[in-house]
Order: sequence, then structure tokens, then C-alpha cells
Amino acid sequence: MDFELNEDQRAFADTARQFASERLAPFAAQWDAEQFFPKQVLRDAGELGFLALYTPEEDCGLGLSRLDSSIVFEQLAMGCTSTTAFMTIHNMVTWMVASFGTQEAKAYFCPQLVYGKWLGSYCLTEPNAGSDAASLTTTARKQGDHYILNGSKTFISGAGETDVLVVMARTGEAGAKGISAFVLQADTPGISYGRKEPKMGWNSQPTRAVTLENVRVPESGLLGQEGEGFTFAMKGLDGGRINIATCSVGTAQQALNQATQYMQERKQFGQSLAQFQGLQFKLADMATELVAARQLVRYAASKLDLGDREATTYCAMAKRFATDVGFQVCDAALQLYGGYGYIREYPLERHFRDVRVHQILEGTNEIMRLIIARRLLSEGCAIW
Amino acid sequence: MDFELNEDQRAFADTARQFASERLAPFAAQWDAEQFFPKQVLRDAGELGFLALYTPEEDCGLGLSRLDSSIVFEQLAMGCTSTTAFMTIHNMVTWMVASFGTQEAKAYFCPQLVYGKWLGSYCLTEPNAGSDAASLTTTARKQGDHYILNGSKTFISGAGETDVLVVMARTGEAGAKGISAFVLQADTPGISYGRKEPKMGWNSQPTRAVTLENVRVPESGLLGQEGEGFTFAMKGLDGGRINIATCSVGTAQQALNQATQYMQERKQFGQSLAQFQGLQFKLADMATELVAARQLVRYAASKLDLGDREATTYCAMAKRFATDVGFQVCDAALQLYGGYGYIREYPLERHFRDVRVHQILEGTNEIMRLIIARRLLSEGCAIW
Amino acid sequence: MDFELNEDQRAFADTARQFASERLAPFAAQWDAEQFFPKQVLRDAGELGFLALYTPEEDCGLGLSRLDSSIVFEQLAMGCTSTTAFMTIHNMVTWMVASFGTQEAKAYFCPQLVYGKWLGSYCLTEPNAGSDAASLTTTARKQGDHYILNGSKTFISGAGETDVLVVMARTGEAGAKGISAFVLQADTPGISYGRKEPKMGWNSQPTRAVTLENVRVPESGLLGQEGEGFTFAMKGLDGGRINIATCSVGTAQQALNQATQYMQERKQFGQSLAQFQGLQFKLADMATELVAARQLVRYAASKLDLGDREATTYCAMAKRFATDVGFQVCDAALQLYGGYGYIREYPLERHFRDVRVHQILEGTNEIMRLIIARRLLSEGCAIW
Amino acid sequence: MDFELNEDQRAFADTARQFASERLAPFAAQWDAEQFFPKQVLRDAGELGFLALYTPEEDCGLGLSRLDSSIVFEQLAMGCTSTTAFMTIHNMVTWMVASFGTQEAKAYFCPQLVYGKWLGSYCLTEPNAGSDAASLTTTARKQGDHYILNGSKTFISGAGETDVLVVMARTGEAGAKGISAFVLQADTPGISYGRKEPKMGWNSQPTRAVTLENVRVPESGLLGQEGEGFTFAMKGLDGGRINIATCSVGTAQQALNQATQYMQERKQFGQSLAQFQGLQFKLADMATELVAARQLVRYAASKLDLGDREATTYCAMAKRFATDVGFQVCDAALQLYGGYGYIREYPLERHFRDVRVHQILEGTNEIMRLIIARRLLSEGCAIW
Repeated sequence: MDFELNEDQRAFADTARQFASERLAPFAAQWDAEQFFPKQVLRDAGELGFLALYTPEEDCGLGLSRLDSSIVFEQLAMGCTSTTAFMTIHNMVTWMVASFGTQEAKAYFCPQLVYGKWLGSYCLTEPNAGSDAASLTTTARKQGDHYILNGSKTFISGAGETDVLVVMARTGEAGAKGISAFVLQADTPGISYGRKEPKMGWNSQPTRAVTLENVRVPESGLLGQEGEGFTFAMKGLDGGRINIATCSVGTAQQALNQATQYMQERKQFGQSLAQFQGLQFKLADMATELVAARQLVRYAASKLDLGDREATTYCAMAKRFATDVGFQVCDAALQLYGGYGYIREYPLERHFRDVRVHQILEGTNEIMRLIIARRLLSEGCAIW
Repeated sequence: MDFELNEDQRAFADTARQFASERLAPFAAQWDAEQFFPKQVLRDAGELGFLALYTPEEDCGLGLSRLDSSIVFEQLAMGCTSTTAFMTIHNMVTWMVASFGTQEAKAYFCPQLVYGKWLGSYCLTEPNAGSDAASLTTTARKQGDHYILNGSKTFISGAGETDVLVVMARTGEAGAKGISAFVLQADTPGISYGRKEPKMGWNSQPTRAVTLENVRVPESGLLGQEGEGFTFAMKGLDGGRINIATCSVGTAQQALNQATQYMQERKQFGQSLAQFQGLQFKLADMATELVAARQLVRYAASKLDLGDREATTYCAMAKRFATDVGFQVCDAALQLYGGYGYIREYPLERHFRDVRVHQILEGTNEIMRLIIARRLLSEGCAIW
Repeated sequence: MDFELNEDQRAFADTARQFASERLAPFAAQWDAEQFFPKQVLRDAGELGFLALYTPEEDCGLGLSRLDSSIVFEQLAMGCTSTTAFMTIHNMVTWMVASFGTQEAKAYFCPQLVYGKWLGSYCLTEPNAGSDAASLTTTARKQGDHYILNGSKTFISGAGETDVLVVMARTGEAGAKGISAFVLQADTPGISYGRKEPKMGWNSQPTRAVTLENVRVPESGLLGQEGEGFTFAMKGLDGGRINIATCSVGTAQQALNQATQYMQERKQFGQSLAQFQGLQFKLADMATELVAARQLVRYAASKLDLGDREATTYCAMAKRFATDVGFQVCDAALQLYGGYGYIREYPLERHFRDVRVHQILEGTNEIMRLIIARRLLSEGCAIW
Repeated sequence: MDFELNEDQRAFADTARQFASERLAPFAAQWDAEQFFPKQVLRDAGELGFLALYTPEEDCGLGLSRLDSSIVFEQLAMGCTSTTAFMTIHNMVTWMVASFGTQEAKAYFCPQLVYGKWLGSYCLTEPNAGSDAASLTTTARKQGDHYILNGSKTFISGAGETDVLVVMARTGEAGAKGISAFVLQADTPGISYGRKEPKMGWNSQPTRAVTLENVRVPESGLLGQEGEGFTFAMKGLDGGRINIATCSVGTAQQALNQATQYMQERKQFGQSLAQFQGLQFKLADMATELVAARQLVRYAASKLDLGDREATTYCAMAKRFATDVGFQVCDAALQLYGGYGYIREYPLERHFRDVRVHQILEGTNEIMRLIIARRLLSEGCAIW
């Protein structure tokens, strides 16, 4: 066993840390306040490879493992939770096209996606199919050498301002096996976008509903075979859960660092907050839980990289634990700041708002519990 | 013992419930989004007596007990947390002037405050004296028949849009015993207001810093005697803690009601959320903790009404417990709503943002723990 | 509303406190160590009325309300958790016979039960019908003017050393409506008792399985009508939950008192534990939760006394909350004692072991959550 | 990074698992009930190397790392918590003699300790120096070529039935720097043992007070130099914390396995417990926290092996987190068993009693919080 970063990982982390502190952190508050989607910064991130971390090298990606990618995303999230979370979604889109796309689709989309010239959105969720993705009702009907897509998607990150969509739609029977995945241009005729959804956080990425009305997608836009869409989605989710868990860990580390510094500076009753044992106990618990969360995320990422048969369960555990801990740490850091934690002049309330959605996204933490429990109660479970 | 509302209490609660559902709830989201301070609605609340609930009847108030007032505030908070919280502050200002003001001050300010023609702000907190109120540095120097006030106040609710200020300032020695309380008009020359502080929540009430430069207050503006200010502040705090705890209980009840209804309507995996036992367990815990919190708040209010020598400790307990439970219930209700909990179209994220500050205000919950522990460890403590 | 004890309640509490401190507390450790069932002390408790607190006065009981009874049981539990818990079971048996028994049964059993000359056991639970009481399989077949009982009961408090049994058995169809209740002498032929079950705590009351083989019970032993047994059991459970919750509150108060005193005496690093803020915070939370628990128990007891239609839900809430808080307080008190908390020379580990079962008994706390949630999700629920 | 066991680690784990299931698990309940110290089984463990896991190979130990040792101890703890905990103490004694002993002492004691022919006790704690070890008052006065030891030790595992003692005593000034460590035979004249302390758990190892009256220890019994004792103790504690944390992880895994199986077998309301979603959620959380705890323990052990400058902090984190999680998992597993969890016929209540002391030993978890917080608030802290 070896728990230390290797040289490459340290180098990637350093690059990411620098990008986060120079290109993300100084602007995160403004992007949040103005609900600004920082496309140029995303493009610059693309040039460093951050938009195709685990896309294979033959498709111009960095070809990193999920574990390596997690190390990078954690550093980025310390700069801006919301923007980094969008990067993780874009990474999934890029990876999905590169992994399952036709040669034609890969040639057309990958170079643009990898370097961030085009940004991508992932269209899975529907108004009546949140956690229950397999029940989705968007249809894709084959007509000649095209598919005709009809339906509605909701809560789509980046929608309306991205260039490429990956869309899950039903080509066959009810249930998971009838679902297929498509890649298409975001301005294909028949696609319309709802209003920008006001949200509590994640404000540097727009969220919109997407309506598809007789949207024509060429055959080459089908990813893999008909009926494989749900499988791709599930594969994407394992990694997506690692990513979102990582965004919680990075944000919480930032909040913890800020709270630690504040405790040393802020004086009350004639001494610094750092000298109050009651607050020290709290700080200790925050740090301990966070270190545990990071290790669990890395463990799950490693299981995913190994193709471990229990990888899905470990990813669900990491997502549940790290997003809960991440929120609790941000909440406690806000509390340590007192009144200053509640006002927008300080970053704490933003961290708190941003990480809150991680407990809901990529399968709610309640769904994670179901996934975990079902596996634990199955024959031959080997979770340690 | 008797835990039931009497006829009067039911009548007051009914009036408040109606006001909340007609005059507050329909507008709360808009006030939050637009950071609008609803002065006219506050005035209308004043006409119903809600701005002087526990101000004595001889000063035109309703002369209710703290327990009765809590019953009213709880209903109002179900309509709008932030606006009700402002009402509780205004109530404190009115009560303080009525209880400790000179005849002249009472005659001048009370009728206006009671009916909400004038609104009041309470100026205690300073940038370097948050939880440690006794260390405040604003000064009041006697000069002839006036006091000259100099200093800075921060996080003042309503400041810049209210008409009356109660200000704590130092007339004497360092520490608690050198502090005096004053009532003055908010537009007295020498008073300037900072920018409207952007906050995570509590957006229907403006928060500003207040700077006092050679502000002249006539002798008649002194509340009680010189040096009694801290005592008044502490008395105010006991009630203030009941009030803020009550605002958490009311908001959480609203969130619980909404989540309960949502669980019955929202379907996933072919059944309503209400049928998922994992979610039922959560709902049960939310309701149980909330009922416990309400009873503890009422118990503490009753102790305050009785002048029980342990009242301060019970108030601290109620504040700590009810604001923590209130936040947890709102957080859990948001989670039950899933993605819909995170967007501003639904009220959950507002409840969540609004109640969060109650764990900080009126003495942080860490200060509450200190107050409670010190008393428990003192001679002759009689807490049950 | 009125949250204070009245004069009678204070008098009962004083008597109970004195009994607890003189007759229970000094011997509790020994009874635990030796697994001794203190029959004589129970008889003496009977003489003070403690074995028939809420049995009607016309049946020689004290005729107290459930709320009054809770006040008494809390004081007793401060002396010995396990013995008091047995008293609450005996109280239920006595009340059930007095409330639903035939004149003949009442005349025969009540005077003996009320004064503790005979002790009673309550036989509901079966090996395969724990939380699911309605599925019990013990049968009672009518034969002439007798019923013939056959079946097995498990976890029966006092069994083998008590004189009277109340037994739930099936006289009719499957499910709740086929169940009837009987009172009989514990030495009726055909009754045999298992070995004394070694338990983690509750050692001053023996627990045994009871086997009934062709046990003849005269008609007069039927409580109420055939098929009413489950209704009686459910009525008994509401009160039983208040009682067990009360035993947790009393024990936790004792543990809290002991920990508070220990913190003042024990020195580490040159100061008393009482001076460590980290421990103060913990103590404050223990006390706060406990005060909330006590108030919730009293609130539920009052609802039961009023015949409130939501009484069952409030009782379930009180049982869930107070037994969880009770255990947490005992656990935290043990921790404050450090190594001394773990050894039998000090009472902390006994409190910890004794209250643990309260989270399981009288319906597990998971069953409480189900009861609460089902009601919350029902039409017309009025829980506040 | 690599989170998988290597071949050697798997082999050691397999051997330990087999020993645990054949030589520990079948007898653990009996040893607990009879308070039996299984010396022969310990000797047999010694033959497999389990009593000198991290003692250097040149001193006949297995020379494993702390991480490897943790993997072994975890498996053993699944068989018997209390006996394994004693083995970890014995391991520390052996390691301390081998690492710091004179040639003479090593030659005399090590071969016996390594193979378990002699068992060892570690005498640090004193009645008035629990968490505050540096304040100990036992003295060691040099007299010719001997030291004369006087003082009292308390809570000494194995005392009275072991053969070798390592004793911390003061040879110099007050505070940490005046403390020295000695190894001596347990039957040296002047040593007397208190009564076997009745404890809540850890019953397969006797605990006694040790009194030293003019106990003569030859110079060769001094470990290292005078004044180094506290340093050795602190080094021992880092590893000791990993070990005790490991014992919690192993026991909790056993409890989790048992609860998982029970959920599949036990039926209520016509279905197995495994089908109740509310219980599934609980099971998922238990497993998730436990996996996180195990990873944190291994991370800390690896830091200790690397000589990382933050190793002490990581060890404190692992100890705090894993012993808390371990207890919570055992508590929840007991609850899932319902009434059967509370009786001694089933192993749950034993797990629950045994792991509870881990939150107290080797520095209470409150002390862990202090260690962690102080480091976090220091210059140059590098905790991730």
C-alpha cells in the first residue's frame, strides 16, 4: 500500500493549485454574484488539459486515471466549486464521446471538447425522472439515417450556453434497456432552452431546461449501440460521483483553511478564537472527518481504476460520505466566522451554498444508501 | 401543568396565521429576491399589535407574556422568516423604550413605534465586539444636557431605513458596568449608514453598519440610569433568544409541512416518496425534534415570564436547541425536495438560508453553551 | 399554559426522591452485580402507592394521571433504573386488570397487586413476534367455562419470580382482532419458565421465557371481551412508552448530576475538568437535550391524559426522543469519567447498560419512527 | 498510490483470520463471562508471531510495519476484541524493550516476550495522572547500581497475571523530561497488586492497580537514558492509538457482518428485516463509516511507518474517528438485533461493551481533539 502522491500527481496538483488560485479563486465571488459563466477561463483550463483529464491520450486527452483526476479536481475546487463542478461534467461528456462515439463523431467533437473550444452539457435528468433515470420518456425514433428526438430535460448544467449535448433518449422498450445515448450540436434545430434557473448556488454555471422537438440527429451521433445508453450513464455516474465528492472535499478544505486562519486572527473576550477549547474541538473534528473523506474518495477512485467488481458501491460510499462531510465542514466553518460567515463579503456562505447541491446531484445521498445497502445484502459482497 | 393553548392564545395565533398566509407568505420569495424591506406590511402588522406584543398595555402595547408572544411570532415566521425576525427586533426596541425610557422619550417614541409608524433598530454589536458585547467602544460623553455619541456599530438590522435607534454606548468605565442605553431618532445629524450588506438570507431586512460622529442625544434619551445599559441588553437578550428560537420553529414547521406534502405528491420508481420507508424515518425524526424544540422554547418563555432565577439558562438552552433543530429540519426538507429544493422557484432553499443565521445571532450557539455550562457548574443550580 | 409542578406533584416527587435515595440508590449496584430481584423493596414501594400510581382509586390505586405518574417514576429511576422499570411494568399489569378485568378478577388480583403482595408480569412478546405483536401465535381455546392456553412467550420481565401474569393470546382469527387478554396466577399448572436470561443490564429484574402448555384459565380471567386484547395492549403501550421514556430521563439526570460533580472534583493538567471549555460544551448539550426530552415526555403524557386523538403519536415521539437522549447523556457522562466510567466501582457504566434497552423495548425506536411517519402522512394529522 | 493488500499482507491476514475464527471467536463469550485470561491462547499467538509483530527481526520479532500489523490486528479483533487488545499492549511492551532496552535486558526479556512465554504489562497511568501522563509521581531513585521505585499505577492491563512490567517513573524534575522507563520482572519484591477490577468489558484481560514499594530494579532495566521515558511513551502511544483504533475497526466489522446476516434471517411483519428500507439506510451508513475508518487508520499507520512529521496528528485522527465509528457501528448493530442484541446469548452486547473503552484508552478522544487542533493551529502544519 502507498498513500502518498507520486511525482506526476504532485506536478498535476501543483499546476491545478496555481490555476485555481490565479484564475478561479479571485473571481469566484463575482461569478456567483453575477451568475456569470466563465467560458474563457474554461477554455484556458482546456489548454492545460483540465477538460479531458481521463479522456484517452489517443483522443487528445491526458489519459489520467480517475484517481489522478480526483487529485486535480480537488485543487481546482479550492478555487471555485461551481466552475470546477462544471468542468467535471464537461469531462464526462468528453470521455463519453471519446469512449463510445463513432469515428465520425469522435473526429468531429473530440478535438473541440478536449481543448474547451466547445463546451458540453449532459442531458439525462427529466422532470419526472430524477433519481429514477431508467424511467425517462424522451424518445429517439429512427427515420432513415437519422434519429428524431422528442422530449424534455431538466436541470441541465451549462444548457443554453454550451455547444454540444449528450442526450439520453428511449429508442426501445420501457426500462433501462431501451435507452440510447446521442451526441449532437447544441444548436440543432428543434432544441429550445428554458429560462436560466435561479439557484441557491452553483451560479457560475447556468442551469436550464432543454426541450427537444423533432430534433434530427445523424446516425453517427449514436454512442455505442442502441440500448447501451443506460449502461454508459451508469459508468459515467460512478466517475461522476467521485468527481462531485472531490469537489466537496476541495471546497471543504478551502473552508477549513479559511476558518483556521480566521480563528488565529479574530479576537473575542481578550483572546484569539484559536485559544477557545470548545472551538478547537470543533476544528479538530472538521479536519478529521475531511481527511477521512479524502481518503475514502481516493480509495473509491482507485477501485474504479482497477475495475473492481465492487467499484460502484465504493463510489456510492465516497459520494455519500464526502458530500455530507463537505457540507458539514463548510457549515461549521461558516459558524466559526460568526456574523461574517453569513455575509457575502466573505467566502464562507458561498462555499456553504455551493456544496449543498452535491448531496443531491448524481443520485441523491438517499439513493447512495440504497445502492450500498442492496449490495451489502447481496450474495458474495466483498466490501471492506 | 397544562400544555394546551388557552382561548386567547388560540385567537392570537389564528390572527397571526391569517396575517402570515395572506400578507407575508405570498410575497416572501419576492422580498428575498429583490431585497425589499416591506415597510407597509410592517405598519399593517403594527395595527394588529404585532409590533408591541409584550409592550405594556399602558404604553399602548398588547401586554402579552413572552410565551404568548412566542405563539404569535411562530405563526408569523411561517409566512416570512426574515420579516418576522425584524418584527421581533422592533418589538424589543419598543419594549425597551417603554420599560426604561423617560416619560418624555416614551411619549415621543412609543405611540409611533407601537403602531409601526416609525420602525426601530437595535444597535449593540460592534466590529470588534460580537459575542463579547461588554467590550464595546462606542462612547457617550455628557455635555450639558446632551450626550455626544461616537463610534461604529455593525450588522444593524433595518439600519438606513428605520426611524428610531436604540444605541448602547459607554458612559463610564471599561466592562459591562460602564455601558448605557439611548434612544434617538435615526436621522439625528452625525449618523451615517454603510452600504446595504449583501447577505445569504434575511433579505427582506436591510443590514448596515452605523457610524456615529458627534451625535447629540438629549438627556431624555437615556434609558434608565447611566451604567444600566448592559443590564437592559441582557434582559433584552433573554427575550431575543426566545424570539429567534421561535422564528426557527415556525420556519421549520413550514418546511416540514411543505416536505410532507411534497412526499405525498412526488413519484419516483413508481410510488410516492411517502411510501419510501427510509424517507419516512427521516420525516419522523424531523417532526419529533421540532415538537421537542417548540416545547423547550415555550418552557423557557414561561420561565422568563415567571422571573425564574434560571430563566437566562433556559433561554440559552431554547435558543441553542431550537435554532439547531430548525436548521436541521429545513436542511432535511430541502433534501427531500431533491433538485427542486435547490432552486429558487421553491421555498425550501430560502427557509434554509434564512434560518441559518439564527444559530449565530443573539449570541452564537457556542456562547449559549458557555452560558449553560457555567450555570450548571455553579453552586445552587436548579435546572430541570 | 403552565409548566410548573403543582403542590401535589411536588409532594409525590419528594416522597419518590426520598424512596429512591434511601431504598434504591444504595443497593442498585449490588442488585445489578448479583442479579437480585428486590421483592421486599418492591412491596415497600407498593405500600407508598408506587405499584398502582394510575390505577383508579376505587381499585385502591392512587388514581394519578399519566403525567403525575411520570413525575414519580422519574424520581424513582434516579435511584435504580432497572427496578423502576419493573415497577412501571407492574403498574401496567395492575392498571390493565383494574380497568378491564371482571369483578371477580379485580377482587381477587387487585388488592394484592396494588400493594405489591403479588408482583405481576406482562406476557406479550413471542420469539417470532417482537415488534410485530399482532402476529402472535399463542392460542386460547374456550373449553366449557375455561380457556386453554398454549404457546411461548419470551423476554418476560419478572417471569419465574412474579405471582400474576397478564397474557395475550389468540382466541380468533389471524391479525390484531383475534387477540384476547387474560390474567392468571403465575403458578397455574402447565406454565413453565426458562432459565434466567443473562442480559447486559436490567439485572435487578429476572427475564425468562414462559411456556404455556394446556394452561387452564377460568372465564373470569378474560380481560374485557374476546378480541379486545390488542386494543388493550396498544393502550398499555402508549403509557408504557411514556414510562420507559421517563426511566431514561431519570437515569440520565442522575448520570448528568454525577458527571457535573465529577467535573468539579477531578483535576487534570492542573485544573478541574470543569474548567475545560471543550468539556463544558459537551455538558451544556447533555443538559439541554435532557431538559428537552423531559418536556417532550410530559407533553406526551398530558396528551394521553387528555385523550388527545394524536396521543399515540406524541407517545411514540417521546419514547423515541427521550430514550435516545437518555442513552446519549449516559454515554457522554461515562466518557467524562474517563477510565473510571468503565469500571463497576462507579455507577456510570451501569446507567449506560441499563438505559440501552429502552431504545429497544416497548416497540423499537425504528417502530416509533414508523408510527410517527404514518400519522404525519395521513389525512388530518394535527401534530404540533 | 495503491490501496490494495499485497501478497504478504494477504497471507498474514489469512493466518490471523484463521487464528481468530478458530482460537478466539468460539471462546470469547466464555472468557468474557468468566473473566478468564487465556494465557495459553496468547502463547499460541506468540508462536505465530502475533506478540511481536513490529518488533525487529533481529530481536526475533516479525519486523512488520505498523500498517502490516494493523492488518493483522484487525483480523484478530474480529475474533475477540479484548484478547486482541491485550496482544497489542504486549506488542508495545515487547517493541519498547527491543527498541530501547540494554543488551542485557533485551537478551533476558525479548525471547520470552516475543514467543509469549512471558506476558507483559505497561504501567503508565496513575490515579491522578490519567490523560495528563507527564504529571506522574511514581519515583525511581538511583541507589548504587539499582533504581528504587515507589508509587502507584492504576488500570494496568494484565497486571497480576503477567510476568514483565514496563514502568514509567520519575527520575528527575517535574514534567515530561524527568520521566524514565524501566523494564522489570512482575514478581520483583515490593510489587503488590490490587483486586481484579470489575469492568464493563475487556473481561478476558485482568485490570489491577500496581503498588511499588522500594522495588529494586537493576541499572540494566533502564530503557534508553534517564529522562527519555516520556518520549518513548509518546512514541508508543502513536502506535498504540493505531492499534486500539484497529481493534475497533475489526470488532465493528464483525458486528456489521453479524447484523447483515441477521437482517437476512429475521422476519417481522411478513418480510425479512433486510427488506425494510429504513434499516437498509442504517446498514449503508454503518458500512460507509466503517470503510472510511479503516482507510483512515491505514493512512495514519502508513504515515507512522514513513516517519512523517505529522504522524502523531494522523494517529490521533485515526484513533478519534475509528473508535467513535467502531462504537457507533456496534451500537447500531445491537439495535438491529432488537431484544436479542441485549442478551448475552448473542455477541452484540459484548462487542458494544468491549469497544466502548477504546474511546477512553490511549488518551481519551477529547485529548485526541486537543492534539489535532493544536497542530492545525500551528505554524507549518501540513495535514491533508
